[in-house]
Parts: sequence; C-alpha cells; structure tokens
Amino acid sequence: MITLSKLEQVQEWTATHQADLAYISDPRTIQYLTGFYSDPIERVLALVVFADQDPFMFAPALEVEAIKETGFKFPVYGYLDHEDPWQLIATQVKTRVANPKQIVLEKNQLTVDRLEQLKRVLPTTSFDKDITPYINQLRVIKTPDEIEKLNIAGKWADFAFEKGFAAVKAGRSEQQVVAELQYALMKEGIMQMSFDTLVQAGAHAAEPHGATNATKFKQNELILFDLGTIWDGYISDASRTVALGTPTAKQREIYDVCLEAQLTAQSAAKPGMTAAELDQVARSIIDKAGYGEYFIHRLGHGMGMSEHEFPSIMAGNEMVLQPGMCFSIEPGIYIPGVAGVRIEDCVHITDSGCEPFTHTSKELTYVG
Amino acid sequence: MITLSKLEQVQEWTATHQADLAYISDPRTIQYLTGFYSDPIERVLALVVFADQDPFMFAPALEVEAIKETGFKFPVYGYLDHEDPWQLIATQVKTRVANPKQIVLEKNQLTVDRLEQLKRVLPTTSFDKDITPYINQLRVIKTPDEIEKLNIAGKWADFAFEKGFAAVKAGRSEQQVVAELQYALMKEGIMQMSFDTLVQAGAHAAEPHGATNATKFKQNELILFDLGTIWDGYISDASRTVALGTPTAKQREIYDVCLEAQLTAQSAAKPGMTAAELDQVARSIIDKAGYGEYFIHRLGHGMGMSEHEFPSIMAGNEMVLQPGMCFSIEPGIYIPGVAGVRIEDCVHITDSGCEPFTHTSKELTYVG
Repeated sequence: MITLSKLEQVQEWTATHQADLAYISDPRTIQYLTGFYSDPIERVLALVVFADQDPFMFAPALEVEAIKETGFKFPVYGYLDHEDPWQLIATQVKTRVANPKQIVLEKNQLTVDRLEQLKRVLPTTSFDKDITPYINQLRVIKTPDEIEKLNIAGKWADFAFEKGFAAVKAGRSEQQVVAELQYALMKEGIMQMSFDTLVQAGAHAAEPHGATNATKFKQNELILFDLGTIWDGYISDASRTVALGTPTAKQREIYDVCLEAQLTAQSAAKPGMTAAELDQVARSIIDKAGYGEYFIHRLGHGMGMSEHEFPSIMAGNEMVLQPGMCFSIEPGIYIPGVAGVRIEDCVHITDSGCEPFTHTSKELTYVG
Repeated sequence: MITLSKLEQVQEWTATHQADLAYISDPRTIQYLTGFYSDPIERVLALVVFADQDPFMFAPALEVEAIKETGFKFPVYGYLDHEDPWQLIATQVKTRVANPKQIVLEKNQLTVDRLEQLKRVLPTTSFDKDITPYINQLRVIKTPDEIEKLNIAGKWADFAFEKGFAAVKAGRSEQQVVAELQYALMKEGIMQMSFDTLVQAGAHAAEPHGATNATKFKQNELILFDLGTIWDGYISDASRTVALGTPTAKQREIYDVCLEAQLTAQSAAKPGMTAAELDQVARSIIDKAGYGEYFIHRLGHGMGMSEHEFPSIMAGNEMVLQPGMCFSIEPGIYIPGVAGVRIEDCVHITDSGCEPFTHTSKELTYVG
C-alpha cells in the first residue's frame, strides 16, 4: 500500500472534486501540509495545490529563504511590499493552467476582500467550493508523530504546574506566579505559551474568560491555573484548581463535583461514542449536583496545532469519536463571588479509550 | 462644537452611506470602538451599529459579563455553544429593522464562510459595501489619549532593552536573554509582548523573519533585538543592534549606514510628505552606500493597537503623513553569513515633525 503524504491527499481531493487547484491560505493548514509556519497578517502567504501537477508556495520575499530551509521541494515565489501579490499569483497559476475553471478555497480563513482580489485577477474562475471540511477531517485524526509532539508539550505543561504551584504564597499576586512559571519554562528553552497563562484567585476565578491580574492570594481560597506550552508547533492545554489553606465547605463541594465530572468523562471517552454523548456524561453529573447553571461552556474543544480545532465536545455535535482525535475534557463550575473551579486534561482517543497528555494530579492539591 | 464618540462616528458613516447597519467583527475594531477586547476565534463576536438607533453587542455567553464590566451601556446578547449564533443575530437585527436592505461589513476581517452564514439568515439583504477603509481612516489618526498609551508602552520597551542588554554574555543563548528581559517585565506586571521577542546573534540576525533560538553569543559579533510590550491595549515595537566585543570593519560599516538611514528618516518625517517619500529618504542612503539589495522590506508599518496598521511606509504609498499618524522607521541591512542590522523607533507625527515612543540610544552600544 502506498501511503500518500498529507499534501498528496489534498491534491487527490482537489482532483476528485473537479477543481483545477486548491488555494490554501490558513497558516496552520500550510504548516500542517508543509512544516512551514508563519502568520504574515496583512501580507499574503499561500500554498497552491494543483490537481495534476506540482504545487507552489507564494510568500512575502523575506519568508522565502525560511520556507526553502524547511525542505519544501517545490517552487517558492516571493513578492516585495510594493508589488501586487494577486497579479503575481494569477500569473503563476496561468503558467500552469491557462484558464482555471474551479479554484477551491479555505472559506473559514479567507477574508471577503481577499476573495474579491482573487476574482479580480481570475475573473472567469468559479470559487464556490470550500475545502475547509476536508482539511478539518484530515486534521482531526492525529498521526503517531503528532501524538508524540502533543505528549512532549503536555510534559512541559506538567512542569509549568509544578513551578507555578511552588510559587504560590499568600500576599503574592497572580501575575507574579505567572512570571515565575513562564521564566522557569523559558530557562528550559520553552519560549511560547499556547495562550495567555491564566492564574486566578478566589472569586476572580469565577470569571471563566477573565485575565490574570494583580489580585493577591489570600489564605483559604481556591486558585485556578489554565496554561499550555508549544512544542514543535503542537500545543498543550490543561487546567488545575488548587487550594491555598483550607477551602470552605462550599468550595470543597464544587471541587469534588467538578472532579467527579472530569474523571467520569475521561474514563468514559472512547471510540464510537459521539461528542455530544461525552459532553452529557460530565454535564449530567454537574446538573444532578445542582450546579448545572454554573457550567456555562462546552465540555471541551479539539486541539493539536491550536486549541481551536475539531472535534468540539458539546451538545448537538454528533461527530463520532475515533482513534487519533484529540480534545480537552474540562468541566467548570463558576459561582460568582464564591469560586471558579475548572479541571482539564487534553486527551487522544485510543483503540479502547483515551490517554491524557498531562499527568499532574487532579486530587485537590494544597499549595503555599 | 459637539465631539462625536468613535462609535457615533461609525453610526454617522453608516447612515450617510445608506446602510441600515454596520456589522463590525474585527476584535481590534470592537476594542477601538468600545474598549472591550477578546478574540473569540471560532466563536462569534460582533458589534452591530445601526444607522438610526442604539447598537448592540453579540458575544459568546461567557464573555457577556466582561463586556458589561467595561461600561458598554447598550444591550449585550450572549449565545451558548450549541446555539446558532447567526439566527440569533438575525433575530435581534429584525427586531430593530424588519427588512434590512444594506449591511456594511469589515471585508478585511470577515471570512467567506461567515458572509455565507449572514446571507443564509438575511437572504434579502445586500452585503456589498465595505466599511474597512473608513475604519482604517478613523484608526490611522491617534488621539492624545492613544499617544499617551503608546508612550507608556514605549517606556516599557526601553526598560526591556536595558534588561536585555545587561543579560548578554558570551556563551549565553538568545533564548536565555529573552527569558531574562521578559521575566523582568513580568515582575513589573507587564505580561504580554506585542509579538515574539527577537534576539538574534551574528549571522543568525541576517534572517530578518527568523526566530530566537538556542544560538549562543560569541565574542565580536552584532546582536539584534526587536521587541515590544502591550500597555492597556496599545503596543510598542522597537529594534536595536548592539555589539558584543568588537565588530569587524564590515559590520561596523553596515551599522553606520543603517543608523544614518534611520536618523535621517526620523529627522525628515513630518506632515505633508508622503509615506513613499519617507521610505525613499532612508532607502536612498542605503542604496548609495551599496547595500540596497540587502534592505529587503519596507521602511515601516503603522502601529497602535497592533503592529499591522496604516500607514505602510513604502514605495508606491502616496498617503500623506498627518499629525497623529503612528508608524515604525526601521531600515535593515541583512547580509547572509555576515550580520543583520536593524534600528527601529516607532514615532507619531506632530505638527512640525515626529516624536519617538522609545528613547534607548541608537549609537552603537557595547554589551557583555
């Protein structure tokens, strides 16, 4: 059996969908297919995959060398800031396909004005088809090589928890603890977090999308950590809630409910069940305990090269879990004025269940 | 004279352009108009500005409280992950305008699939007009309040240079220096850089879009720093190239050429000249010295809430500089195998010239 590379699979899909070429513009997709990552923001970066000939890349001039260094073996064309990138792309396309009838797009990434630019330079081409669902389907099943990178990113998240927990002391601030754990990571050469590290103390943690600030830790409260690192383009993402001193009975209760929901869902996750069913496993435990109204987000999100991938673990998503799918399991209970608790591992589905990327204890940990 | 708020100016523009409402979706524009910032990635965040009635915001449920806390005095509607955000938006729109004829979009931010969703729920509405040029025009002139924030962000960049230069020693790595300067910032509560800090040593710096890595400093080489911080939503961005030991004559020469280009351009920048003219001031100096082929990017980019704003300081841009415009002046000379030199301040145009946000000396500084 010949195994097609990811790039060849995109080429094959393009051919079987009667398109002349696929215009790939999402920096993460380009990274996934070629190993090269850069987000050029307002500049133009594209991987152009033809149905029946070699692809090319198009990039800002100052990225061309870096692309070649990643081992991309096909042509790379650069453009300077004062040039019209769209005309240059059209010229390269027409050199290969004189009159392209159908170009498929990543409609979830391409902006409306860029589509208008493509239509301007290729006025007789149809741009109706979307390759996004196929790219998502390709990306949702991680290869063993990808799982290995996610495991390493997970180990660095465990390292960060250890350093962060050790830095907590009454009177210190959330920001000081983030400073200590990120400094410890940077000294080890881990320079990038996958998102802004969250350390939130006491009632501040009841704001699930709030930010770390100068709030100082007080004795006898819960502290929420949510963090992740990047390893070779792959991320980790995990949450733990720890206790400084002795939590109140109420805080302890919501911790225990949240933990039961997390552990039960993580034990239940396996191939063949749907994302919605898994969400319900955790949600029903929190509902039964009377805290359903405080669990105001989905159970989890897909992850891999970012924390915004498929599958989304939520009500209504009938996607069937399969080996190689990676996602978070992160129930949370946020009671304004009382506490916020979230406990999260990201996992990958195996043949019979799931395995987490992070291994920091989920039993209530006392710090300070 | 009544001064309109930024939000009122958008409302007025919408009214004068015969549109029923503007669908504002760029998180940075929403921040600019309301003070609230969040990038919800795959979730939906929108500010809906009507021509003749009050606006509303639409956001993921878990962002609603944070929006209200910023003082937004109009309705905020949240949605849960399993709900259809587009139907909910359409319902709120139709409550106010039963049959909207024209909705203006931010075409440089809205993706093709999201436009298709809007067309699905509002099938009789036209979405042809783009408000992006107006938003850019509004954002390109910074207010005194914005300049003040940019000055503070600039002071923290100066602080970071000081800590970074002090951390350089032969045998240490680029990453270790980044760790030290970012740790120093975080201890002061400055948690976010405006982009990944760049410290590049020797020949590594000749790759202008390369990344900081484990390269160790050697005696007698140049080291390039490019960094910036975020202060209250506004960024800084500055570059300095410093010497560890004694640079070679060649390295010293390209430093001096780059410095002359930078200082001359910064002295020349003033209202009434075009962006292209300013680019040419710096470029002609580097060209005359024989290094034109190694200056492979525009002279500068606009900045404010990000380092990707207008005006772009480059050939072909006939935009006339006006008081309140903010941009970088950053000539660079990158000679493969020899060195990379870049010297950059961001400035704002004043009535008679320009003022920089950063003040770290640009004379060649010796470190280590």
